Amino acid sequence: MGKNEGEENGFDPENHNQEEEEEDKKKHLKEEELSVERIFENQEVPSWRKQLTVRAFVVSFVLSILFSFIVMKFNLTTGIIPSLNVSAGLLGFFFVNTWTKLLQKAGLLRQPFTRQENTVIQTCVVASSGISFSGGYGNYLFAMSERIAKQSTDTLDFKKLSLGWMIGFLFVVSFLGLFSVVPLRKIMIIDFKLTYPSGTATAHLINSFQTPQGAKLAKKQVRELGKFFTISFLWGFFQWFYTAGENCGFANFPSLGLKAYDSKFFFDFSTTYVGVGMICPHIINISLLVGGILSWGMMWPLIEDRKGDWYPADLSSDSFSGLQGYKVFIAIALILGDGLYNFLKVLCQTIVGLSHQLRYKDASSGLSVADHSSLVSSQLSYDDKRRTQLFLKDQIPTLFAIGGYVVIAAIAMAILPHIFHQLKWYHILVIYIFAPTLAFCNAYGCGLTDWSLGSTYGKLSIFIIGAWAGASHGGVLAGLAACGVMMNIVSTASDLMQDFKTGYLTLASPRSMFVSQIIGTAMGCVISPCVFWLFYKAFDDLGQPGSQYPSPYAVVYRNMALLGVKGFSSLPKNCLLLCYVFFGGAIMINLIRDLVGKKWRRFIPFPMAMAIPFYLGSYFAIDMCVGSLILFVWGKINKAKADALGPAVASGLICGDGIWTLPASIFALAGVKPPICMKFLSRGNNAKVDKFLGS
Amino acid sequence: MGKNEGEENGFDPENHNQEEEEEDKKKHLKEEELSVERIFENQEVPSWRKQLTVRAFVVSFVLSILFSFIVMKFNLTTGIIPSLNVSAGLLGFFFVNTWTKLLQKAGLLRQPFTRQENTVIQTCVVASSGISFSGGYGNYLFAMSERIAKQSTDTLDFKKLSLGWMIGFLFVVSFLGLFSVVPLRKIMIIDFKLTYPSGTATAHLINSFQTPQGAKLAKKQVRELGKFFTISFLWGFFQWFYTAGENCGFANFPSLGLKAYDSKFFFDFSTTYVGVGMICPHIINISLLVGGILSWGMMWPLIEDRKGDWYPADLSSDSFSGLQGYKVFIAIALILGDGLYNFLKVLCQTIVGLSHQLRYKDASSGLSVADHSSLVSSQLSYDDKRRTQLFLKDQIPTLFAIGGYVVIAAIAMAILPHIFHQLKWYHILVIYIFAPTLAFCNAYGCGLTDWSLGSTYGKLSIFIIGAWAGASHGGVLAGLAACGVMMNIVSTASDLMQDFKTGYLTLASPRSMFVSQIIGTAMGCVISPCVFWLFYKAFDDLGQPGSQYPSPYAVVYRNMALLGVKGFSSLPKNCLLLCYVFFGGAIMINLIRDLVGKKWRRFIPFPMAMAIPFYLGSYFAIDMCVGSLILFVWGKINKAKADALGPAVASGLICGDGIWTLPASIFALAGVKPPICMKFLSRGNNAKVDKFLGS
Repeated sequence: MGKNEGEENGFDPENHNQEEEEEDKKKHLKEEELSVERIFENQEVPSWRKQLTVRAFVVSFVLSILFSFIVMKFNLTTGIIPSLNVSAGLLGFFFVNTWTKLLQKAGLLRQPFTRQENTVIQTCVVASSGISFSGGYGNYLFAMSERIAKQSTDTLDFKKLSLGWMIGFLFVVSFLGLFSVVPLRKIMIIDFKLTYPSGTATAHLINSFQTPQGAKLAKKQVRELGKFFTISFLWGFFQWFYTAGENCGFANFPSLGLKAYDSKFFFDFSTTYVGVGMICPHIINISLLVGGILSWGMMWPLIEDRKGDWYPADLSSDSFSGLQGYKVFIAIALILGDGLYNFLKVLCQTIVGLSHQLRYKDASSGLSVADHSSLVSSQLSYDDKRRTQLFLKDQIPTLFAIGGYVVIAAIAMAILPHIFHQLKWYHILVIYIFAPTLAFCNAYGCGLTDWSLGSTYGKLSIFIIGAWAGASHGGVLAGLAACGVMMNIVSTASDLMQDFKTGYLTLASPRSMFVSQIIGTAMGCVISPCVFWLFYKAFDDLGQPGSQYPSPYAVVYRNMALLGVKGFSSLPKNCLLLCYVFFGGAIMINLIRDLVGKKWRRFIPFPMAMAIPFYLGSYFAIDMCVGSLILFVWGKINKAKADALGPAVASGLICGDGIWTLPASIFALAGVKPPICMKFLSRGNNAKVDKFLGS
Repeated sequence: MGKNEGEENGFDPENHNQEEEEEDKKKHLKEEELSVERIFENQEVPSWRKQLTVRAFVVSFVLSILFSFIVMKFNLTTGIIPSLNVSAGLLGFFFVNTWTKLLQKAGLLRQPFTRQENTVIQTCVVASSGISFSGGYGNYLFAMSERIAKQSTDTLDFKKLSLGWMIGFLFVVSFLGLFSVVPLRKIMIIDFKLTYPSGTATAHLINSFQTPQGAKLAKKQVRELGKFFTISFLWGFFQWFYTAGENCGFANFPSLGLKAYDSKFFFDFSTTYVGVGMICPHIINISLLVGGILSWGMMWPLIEDRKGDWYPADLSSDSFSGLQGYKVFIAIALILGDGLYNFLKVLCQTIVGLSHQLRYKDASSGLSVADHSSLVSSQLSYDDKRRTQLFLKDQIPTLFAIGGYVVIAAIAMAILPHIFHQLKWYHILVIYIFAPTLAFCNAYGCGLTDWSLGSTYGKLSIFIIGAWAGASHGGVLAGLAACGVMMNIVSTASDLMQDFKTGYLTLASPRSMFVSQIIGTAMGCVISPCVFWLFYKAFDDLGQPGSQYPSPYAVVYRNMALLGVKGFSSLPKNCLLLCYVFFGGAIMINLIRDLVGKKWRRFIPFPMAMAIPFYLGSYFAIDMCVGSLILFVWGKINKAKADALGPAVASGLICGDGIWTLPASIFALAGVKPPICMKFLSRGNNAKVDKFLGS
């Protein structure tokens, strides 16, 4: 799931493959000795139907409610939602394992608990709780309400919230992402071998839990994972004590100085992102950093110097007519440029591959999209072979996926205009034509960087559909509704692809996962609106600034929609020009990468990765580079050990921090507040504060 | 040198030996394999005269000036002075090594640079810069001045500062400590095998620098030392950035919560004390922590509840008629009880040993003071044998030392009353009769814990001599002058014993070290008053609260003296009673330790160590326990490695932080101030501050 904010997550395809290949070769050598699947060799993989147990869905249902509460709380307080994949996997294991052990003792156990079942639970919970984010309770959906409209200057367009239409709306839009993901599954995971750091970490966790006795290396890995899990969890716990108030705690540590901190260059002590950095290839981490330096280090300060010329000086800092506009739209341009190039490239290769296959009837290995995959297959390690075999065993026919997509799209086109009469059927059609491209982009980017940029694509829809509908025809509501439609598809695509990666690494059947995702999505469509309704009815000041649940992004989204209906002309000066430049730049960089030799290719950054810090700042890029550095130095000291234990350490770091969000959320819901603020003041301010506190 | 504040450092003798024995046995087994001196076996140890080179003293002179500036700065800003032994050793090596390498290249080198010469430089610099502390520029001496008297309520007794009498005073009192140390040397280092953590660390550093090529373990140790030296130095550097203002930075991190922080229970991230903890025996660290819990955790809060009953509620927090009085005097009582018990015990054993020796004329091994030493000698490792042999080779006759002490004491008695006419010759006689006992206590305690409590003994003199002289006869000045006399002896005793430990471990001759100490002391008697005079003349607001150099302890000492002349009756209620109880308690604990079996002995804490946190709080005790814990866990994981590399790691931690004080001081002198304050606020205060900064 990566991290969902009001904003995020990246993309770039294929060209990555060549360097992956080299890395793969090394990996293969290593994996011959360090095979995970050899350990599980004697364990039978249950059929996909057997992976779907009643107990799994009971546990999933309970966890879904729990996580919906947690995500909703994040939605309505800061709008920033950490990854919960890991927590889902771990808690799923914990519940079912306790259950089965009890049954075993009572002699009633009919079916042992397998890692495939564990993955099914995890997938179901992620699908369900993901809707608590993509349902937009913290942004687009709540932005439609009267409460938020009153805070904005206009009070014209709003829609009275009610449980009925919210559930209906979610049922209509949430399943589409599922069907768009299915055909991409093999491309992303088997052909491109994308990392999906959160998904990989979860899989390592699940594998390590279910490891049979006696495997020496696995034991070592489990020990490392356990060690760093504990460290990471305790570190999260320790950090918590110092976060009483905004800008407090280690997450705001100006480790590179206050000036750098203001430009979001700092190490924020997040073990999650250090772990993610250890899983991502070095070049991705470097790309992120390069993007951060280019944007926050150079462009934004230069543009800010033009304040009063390029855009009015008296705008609030989060106005899209000001600096914020440049940040969001230039990032979108980069992402779209990179995404489009790679989408077209893959499309061409797919067509070539398909026609080739059809001609030679070589259908045994399924769709061979990228030509390199056949090159690699001969050198596949035991793990890869076994995983690929099981991943491809239970096919979901592409026609079924496409058919499902078309049917659901048609239903949506019929129903949505009845819910939002401002949204026309042709708006929805256009969205659904472009959505698979963007879903591809997002799933690819997420695989590379672990960031889902669902909300970025959502914002794009606000602007395009809002401008198209026009202010006089309720463009504000149309834009927000379109945002919801888009965000659901795109976020689901990346979330579920993470799950498929987990499934790939745990030998779970794609078919059982697909069913689990459908059930999870259905759960989420009911649970999350109910949870929101509870909050909405319980807190009268929900959405009011300064209250316990200010829901900051709701107002931001509404303001974006207001700006959107005025069209691109409302963007600040030269913003559109810069967008064109960066759109072209992204395509250029990709072209260069495809044209230069292998030797130089690995030094060329990925525009998709570069774009992410444009909006968010570089702090997580610095975390990830620290992870890269750790792995690099470790590799220099002891290559074999680093290769064998690196992923376990990284997973431990990600999982420990991930699980910590659970008690942290429970603390927050229970009103247990951290006691201390670790604050960072400049020398001047500190003197003032000392005087103030002294008097 | 440990850490000198206005306050510090501990003691306790002999009983420690039995458990040391056990540890020694283990050590011997280990050292057979890991002998340091085997590495140096082929290196000839130069004669003591050859260890004293002109270049050594030229370098010492330059470094003495440098360190005098640094110490003076600490004196006049916070009054807390970190250990500079290590810096002296390192910089001495750096200068002479560069010099000899240049000469070698030019073909002019006549004498190679040896570790003995390095130790001589280090000793000389420590002796010299030590006087910058014990000269009392930040406390008793400055407290006599008119400037400080004006800040106090009285303006009756003051002495106009002048360079002349200050130098004279120092020459009279500073050499005495030297002579009192000489006879204790062998008891402390060879018989008791005290650790002297700073001295040991310095020796490890010097040894590692001078290690000849090819020694495998030494290389490993040097690498570990270098690694942790770098980490510790960089950590010190990093911390510095966040210390803009009081109570800022990692040194004030409320790692156990704000309530615990208020009672001085926190981990202050000082690598120095973590390293010290790794060198000190576990029981010492535990004793410190027990003392901290007993005092700050239980007694002080209970006494504070009696505020308004036991002592007036409206006193300032640093008044000796209030809680501060309990803290200081109960600590002194514990220290004196423990010290006296052990002094008498050792005295008895010495007399028994001497008479035994005289009877059997077994003079070959010198004074065999503690009977156990003969037990151990048969199991001495190669290192211990060689070190002991060289340490005992160049004897300084005890008669010479005693004679020197008496002659200098007589001179002091003649001259001091002329400088301070309030101080009578019989005051001085009494001080000089008791001084050796206290010097022994301090040197012993420092050997155990690395803390020198010179200023504690100084305070005792303020009270006793001040009360004796009486307010009407200038008791304030008499007390302060007596403090100076006492502090010089007692501080010198512990500082120089650290040096002797370094000398023991580097095979430097005691005789060359003695000469070096005399020369260093003479340098210090001239350099330090001149440096102070520079500050005094350059800064008109020197000693004013809120100025750049507030010299906080000067006023504290003057107030102590004012209180002292009123006698013990001015102490708060029950304070004297508690002192008696703890004095008796210290003796009891020692008796119990001597009576119970070996098995239980090692679980009984040392009252001397327990007393230190009574006044200072437990933060450094927690650091040291962390060090203990690290070594303990390391030992559990890999005993051999922990034993071999532990001291190197500890030395690296101590040295890196130690050297960092040098650039930090240069920054401070140059007016380069840290830019950021890392502040810790309670949630309530944080909200207030946010509001204040927002408006």
